[in-house]
Amino acid sequence: MIIKSTSPFKVALPFGSGKNKLNFTPASSGREKIKRYKIACSFQINGTGISSLSPIESQKNETLENINQLSAPTMENWELINGKPLINAEPSTGRLLKDGLIFQQNFTVRSYEIGSDFKISIESLMNYLQETSLNHLRSAGILTDGFGSTIEMTEKDLIWVACWSHTEVDHYPSWADVVQVDVWNYMAGRKGLRCDWLIRDFNTGKTLIRATSLYAMMNKKTRKFAKASEEIMGGMKPIMLRYCDPLVNRDGRKLLQLDADKADYIRSGLNPGWTDMDVNQHVSHIKLVNYILEGVPSSIVKSCELCAMTLEYRKECSADSVLQSVSKFCSNHLINNQEIEFDHSLSVEGGPEVVRGRTRWRKRS
Amino acid sequence: MIIKSTSPFKVALPFGSGKNKLNFTPASSGREKIKRYKIACSFQINGTGISSLSPIESQKNETLENINQLSAPTMENWELINGKPLINAEPSTGRLLKDGLIFQQNFTVRSYEIGSDFKISIESLMNYLQETSLNHLRSAGILTDGFGSTIEMTEKDLIWVACWSHTEVDHYPSWADVVQVDVWNYMAGRKGLRCDWLIRDFNTGKTLIRATSLYAMMNKKTRKFAKASEEIMGGMKPIMLRYCDPLVNRDGRKLLQLDADKADYIRSGLNPGWTDMDVNQHVSHIKLVNYILEGVPSSIVKSCELCAMTLEYRKECSADSVLQSVSKFCSNHLINNQEIEFDHSLSVEGGPEVVRGRTRWRKRS
Repeated sequence: MIIKSTSPFKVALPFGSGKNKLNFTPASSGREKIKRYKIACSFQINGTGISSLSPIESQKNETLENINQLSAPTMENWELINGKPLINAEPSTGRLLKDGLIFQQNFTVRSYEIGSDFKISIESLMNYLQETSLNHLRSAGILTDGFGSTIEMTEKDLIWVACWSHTEVDHYPSWADVVQVDVWNYMAGRKGLRCDWLIRDFNTGKTLIRATSLYAMMNKKTRKFAKASEEIMGGMKPIMLRYCDPLVNRDGRKLLQLDADKADYIRSGLNPGWTDMDVNQHVSHIKLVNYILEGVPSSIVKSCELCAMTLEYRKECSADSVLQSVSKFCSNHLINNQEIEFDHSLSVEGGPEVVRGRTRWRKRS
Repeated sequence: MIIKSTSPFKVALPFGSGKNKLNFTPASSGREKIKRYKIACSFQINGTGISSLSPIESQKNETLENINQLSAPTMENWELINGKPLINAEPSTGRLLKDGLIFQQNFTVRSYEIGSDFKISIESLMNYLQETSLNHLRSAGILTDGFGSTIEMTEKDLIWVACWSHTEVDHYPSWADVVQVDVWNYMAGRKGLRCDWLIRDFNTGKTLIRATSLYAMMNKKTRKFAKASEEIMGGMKPIMLRYCDPLVNRDGRKLLQLDADKADYIRSGLNPGWTDMDVNQHVSHIKLVNYILEGVPSSIVKSCELCAMTLEYRKECSADSVLQSVSKFCSNHLINNQEIEFDHSLSVEGGPEVVRGRTRWRKRS
């Protein structure tokens, strides 16, 4: 896998670079399909990619140039599957761009999505990521069951589960701000699905958050990981790049299992409950983020804000678990006297490790 | 207060009845202002009130007949306060109806707002209620600070806090369903603000949820309740009915403090954290709903769904509290062999009671 260093304040979408690294996997081998992909490709190479435009300009261009490229069957599926006039009811539900390879949705940050500092909470950010990924599948008529399962997956009792995620926050949107989220998918090895997200301020086009996650397939009966065969992945091909440079990368440092005896902060007795469960019959991986973050004391949270977070999901968590969240300053935790770094471990008390992580916090301005 | 018995499956908005019980409190005594209120009033009496229309029809009518009644200063304030082209960015943010006395907003139920049964969670329902109330104030240009504080309240360090709420759920919307929420406000005694909400299926107009809450003012420095003077309430007059029949009423039975020794279910060691805090610097009253509900075992939740909930908020809760949620079957808890009823009490362990409640659950179909 090619690791690409990305400047924290200047984001180029992986499609927008001068070099064409796209390697599409057409859903059919028909001549017409190939032609359509070539059009999409040249659109990105000729310098009018959305990375060089503000979301507003980009949206106008999409309306003019790209909206006709959306395949008619896709639009029909959307109607058939949901049977609701979503566009009339809530036009913000989103849109397919670049021949369905990108999904874009606007969100107005709501009152219940902010923390005590009036800025969006980490949980809500993660929610936006999940929502856009699933709406990408829905809008392309691919999702049939649960959280992102295609027809082929449903037939084989397969579900998607998060393996790891990495998020970098340049700026937090506040209550009532409007953000625009772009999401796209590509293969990661033979088993995994990689999703990248770019969140920008709708009005200024300024990059706010970049995130990337790896998902793998699990059998929902045996709860074991399953290999993603060609047949199974086939259903997702219309909206998946075979390869592209990641928008953002986690650094190369390994995440460590922490010994509670040597931790700087321990939060014990954390009780997920049935209100934390998701449709995959385990505690939602987004709710687990909160339990990791509860390992950071509120004194740090008052003076600093999270600017980067890497999480590895190691075990499923049931609703009757009692969890312990431990945090330890990293060895060189004070970065330029402005940022601090923690290692984290979330475990079932007296049981297995559920999530391992690293977070970076910068002083609040 | 007049108690009105409301049929559970047929809802008439309090404005829509033949008798005119409206008693408006105009924001100014100017001739033009009074005229506008008279127009709004006659609109409701002549039988074309939204209660007799589906949301879609109602929306069309509002567009044609009522949209011009929105006061220009209101629209200007909206622009001035937020400075964002919200209508262009996310047209679902909502709209003022009936001269600003009702606020209406559509929501598409999102993937992160559902429980493991694919239906909207109670927490998300409560979120919709809060969101529409605050957007009512925002869209009328009244909100200046925090969660619903007017200019007059902000000058006196006053915030709104929930005293009690009552919610009745006829049907739960599922993932991707579109619901339409109407909210309106009226005085309750000399101190309180009462909000009523009606949630309907956007496509069918079918009533899904009815809810009502009482809010009082608290001084955010002393954390003591404050009297809502004429001067302070003045800022809210443009969007407040002086009186109307409640859409739904809690029954007359008193909520009881439960003795843990006699409870049927006890859930101890519940740990709210900094991720549960809201902008009023206490644990969000919506997050407390989850802690109450965790007192009901998952076996009940699997076989039944909540159909009514009454909650009384008695004390603020800080993020370092350890809570105990206890539940007890009501004395005649089995209703028609289809519904069961619980009394609830959420307390700080070894400390004061935070929330007292009663819930009713019906068998899942």
